[in-house]
Amino acid sequence: MRLSRYFLPILKETPREAEIVSHQLMLRAGMIRQQAAGIYSFLPLGLKVLNKVCNIIREEQNRSGAVEILMPTIQSADLWRESGRYDAYGKEMLRIADRQERELLFGPTNEEMVTDIFRSSVRSYKDLPLNLYQIQWKFRDEVRPRFGVMRSREFLMKDAYSFDLDVDSATNAYHRMFVAYLRTFHRCGLKAIPMRADTGPIGGNLSHEFIILASTGESEVFCHRDYLDMAVPPADVDFDDAGQLASIVEAWTTPYAATDEMHEEAAWSRVDPASQLSARGIEVGHIFYFGTKYSEAMKAFVTGPDGKDVPVHMGSYGIGPSRLVAAAIEAFHDESGIVWPRAIAPFDVGLINMKPGDADCDAACETLYAQMKQAGIDVLYDDRDQRAGAKFATMDLIGLPTQVIVGPRSAKTGEAEIKDRASGVRETIAMDQIIARVSS
Amino acid sequence: MRLSRYFLPILKETPREAEIVSHQLMLRAGMIRQQAAGIYSFLPLGLKVLNKVCNIIREEQNRSGAVEILMPTIQSADLWRESGRYDAYGKEMLRIADRQERELLFGPTNEEMVTDIFRSSVRSYKDLPLNLYQIQWKFRDEVRPRFGVMRSREFLMKDAYSFDLDVDSATNAYHRMFVAYLRTFHRCGLKAIPMRADTGPIGGNLSHEFIILASTGESEVFCHRDYLDMAVPPADVDFDDAGQLASIVEAWTTPYAATDEMHEEAAWSRVDPASQLSARGIEVGHIFYFGTKYSEAMKAFVTGPDGKDVPVHMGSYGIGPSRLVAAAIEAFHDESGIVWPRAIAPFDVGLINMKPGDADCDAACETLYAQMKQAGIDVLYDDRDQRAGAKFATMDLIGLPTQVIVGPRSAKTGEAEIKDRASGVRETIAMDQIIARVSS
Repeated sequence: MRLSRYFLPILKETPREAEIVSHQLMLRAGMIRQQAAGIYSFLPLGLKVLNKVCNIIREEQNRSGAVEILMPTIQSADLWRESGRYDAYGKEMLRIADRQERELLFGPTNEEMVTDIFRSSVRSYKDLPLNLYQIQWKFRDEVRPRFGVMRSREFLMKDAYSFDLDVDSATNAYHRMFVAYLRTFHRCGLKAIPMRADTGPIGGNLSHEFIILASTGESEVFCHRDYLDMAVPPADVDFDDAGQLASIVEAWTTPYAATDEMHEEAAWSRVDPASQLSARGIEVGHIFYFGTKYSEAMKAFVTGPDGKDVPVHMGSYGIGPSRLVAAAIEAFHDESGIVWPRAIAPFDVGLINMKPGDADCDAACETLYAQMKQAGIDVLYDDRDQRAGAKFATMDLIGLPTQVIVGPRSAKTGEAEIKDRASGVRETIAMDQIIARVSS
Repeated sequence: MRLSRYFLPILKETPREAEIVSHQLMLRAGMIRQQAAGIYSFLPLGLKVLNKVCNIIREEQNRSGAVEILMPTIQSADLWRESGRYDAYGKEMLRIADRQERELLFGPTNEEMVTDIFRSSVRSYKDLPLNLYQIQWKFRDEVRPRFGVMRSREFLMKDAYSFDLDVDSATNAYHRMFVAYLRTFHRCGLKAIPMRADTGPIGGNLSHEFIILASTGESEVFCHRDYLDMAVPPADVDFDDAGQLASIVEAWTTPYAATDEMHEEAAWSRVDPASQLSARGIEVGHIFYFGTKYSEAMKAFVTGPDGKDVPVHMGSYGIGPSRLVAAAIEAFHDESGIVWPRAIAPFDVGLINMKPGDADCDAACETLYAQMKQAGIDVLYDDRDQRAGAKFATMDLIGLPTQVIVGPRSAKTGEAEIKDRASGVRETIAMDQIIARVSS
């Protein structure tokens, strides 16, 4: 992509309303724009990151056996009356009346609707297990939306819902998602630690939050240092092997790990002080097993092997991709801007033409640009007529992993500079080595 | 994908509420489910088609130089007061009050919001031309939603917005989208005919609808038969060549073509009667040039080359991907079900195991399934324990372009049957020829 044809509205000043660094950097880097309190547009650079995150989530959901659907944002109030949550949910729910004065709402979550889909079409235990997920916009009318897309009112959510015949099978479904989540965050370049969590209004008695550590995190967390080096399950983990999944989950839940809310001083004091890690964290995922809470209320029954109808056992599993983008910035930035993990970087490479109009510079850049596109490297080419200093600052701000810099002098000698954004290391190499180096 | 692990809730009976064939078939094939009046879930099979359509749209938007963003579904009423449309829009707009009693709405279209994004960041003619597009859910509170996703209240829309310095440049932007639309519908397997259209509440004086012909179409259309054989611009069409684009648009707008609303008997009578095609059609896209209507009202000005501030010239360009899925079914079905154009089929191939449990059948199917996945063929493998007749009916209903059928007898002789869904032609060929044949 040529920057001259892109839409990258960089801000020179840090907007005063932005309190945390991810919000500041997302605004400054032209990733998002606030449209109303807690409601944001994703501009091209932000959307590219969001889509990369969603694709990783999607691949890992599919790998674990979940099947993608897409439910509407607008729901009927009647459905929520069946579960009893219409009145219970409170003011966070955005309630709407249509032109016929029918009561609708903008979905804050989808347990009711997915249960309705399930009960309308699944009758037998033979069609289980089933896990349906979607990636769809939600709305929660927070009293005080803030921190940009970290705590916005309209936000993107991947929500999965599992349906099983009994507790054992439902526990296995929970384990599948647990392992999929470990892999998802790892692939996004994040170290996420599962922590036993309160189930809150969703209900049930088994729940974990996935927390990434960041000094600017919203909540205090306590965990064993062992988590920092624990191996994440590989891509070929067998999701049909219940025993293998259970042992992975056991390994990842045995050392102490708790958020503020669930912290127990007695258990914590039994952790070797040298292994105690108390830090700040950001929740990026939350999974729940809540049994038959919704299926009983909404009559989602299946016929079991013995011919008797039983309410289906359910769990739900959420990741906030829009929030995850912000969380990644909280974890990876420096004083110059964002430092994207490679897997979710909006572009692989930023190509800087230091002097557009200089024939050698232009020719070298055009050649590199064409070669990179040919090699499948996603490149942002800064071909604008601006001074080099401003281009360097912009490139550092938007945090692409690799920069390739071509100036009049290096173009003449057939060389270019490669800069690694994370380490800051710069190296001058021959032009014909660039593609091989950047691809590796 | 193994059908035993998929979610494909086929209906045996045609639901009574479905009046048109696409609605009937989408319900029967388990593609969608109604959640409230005019509000639908996309189930796995429907979502796959929707995503294929969106990807084609996206590729052609990008090729034409448009840049993707994503605006929120919820908008502020204040923005619409600036353009004067808040009161003018009427009851089709879903109006919402949040917990602070702020007036919001679910966006029925985004001219106001995108103009707000533009004016907040673009100041100079040097940053033009610019075309920003999104694919996002919209809501229009129709009095009588019907025909499934063909006329639903919550629907997906690709909406693009162009910004240019003057009429000439804006006309070129209009031509770029016109050509992108021709390519988009063609790639979806549809023959779309551009017809001069009324601009309606969007405003402006230049507008075309893209209409596909289908006997069940909602409106009467009149056009020259030449359209049926007109060549669609190739993938390497040069979107930077304004002259080339203008001549393509001219070729595609010269023969007579009009919807009912714009039909002129005098002009029609001058078309050679043998070339007159009067038929029914479905609108799948609509493009508008409306000049400075929104930019003047909302003060979206840029500084021109002469240093003077001028309101930017705008156009907007819509495709309804969810509606397009239904329109494709209206155009391509038979008495057994859907007959997908290959480019938007949910899977490339349906693999039918006629007798699961039969060792030869299972082995042959597993081999073919693995080979297809290896070859990048997207295959739906019906491995369920059901009788063959039901499997054939399901496969015909969901309309995958190619079926590969393995029975105990053919498995023993190392053969399988290939059926072309569109022609119904069946052919028995050697198992080791299947992949090559299916890939071609």
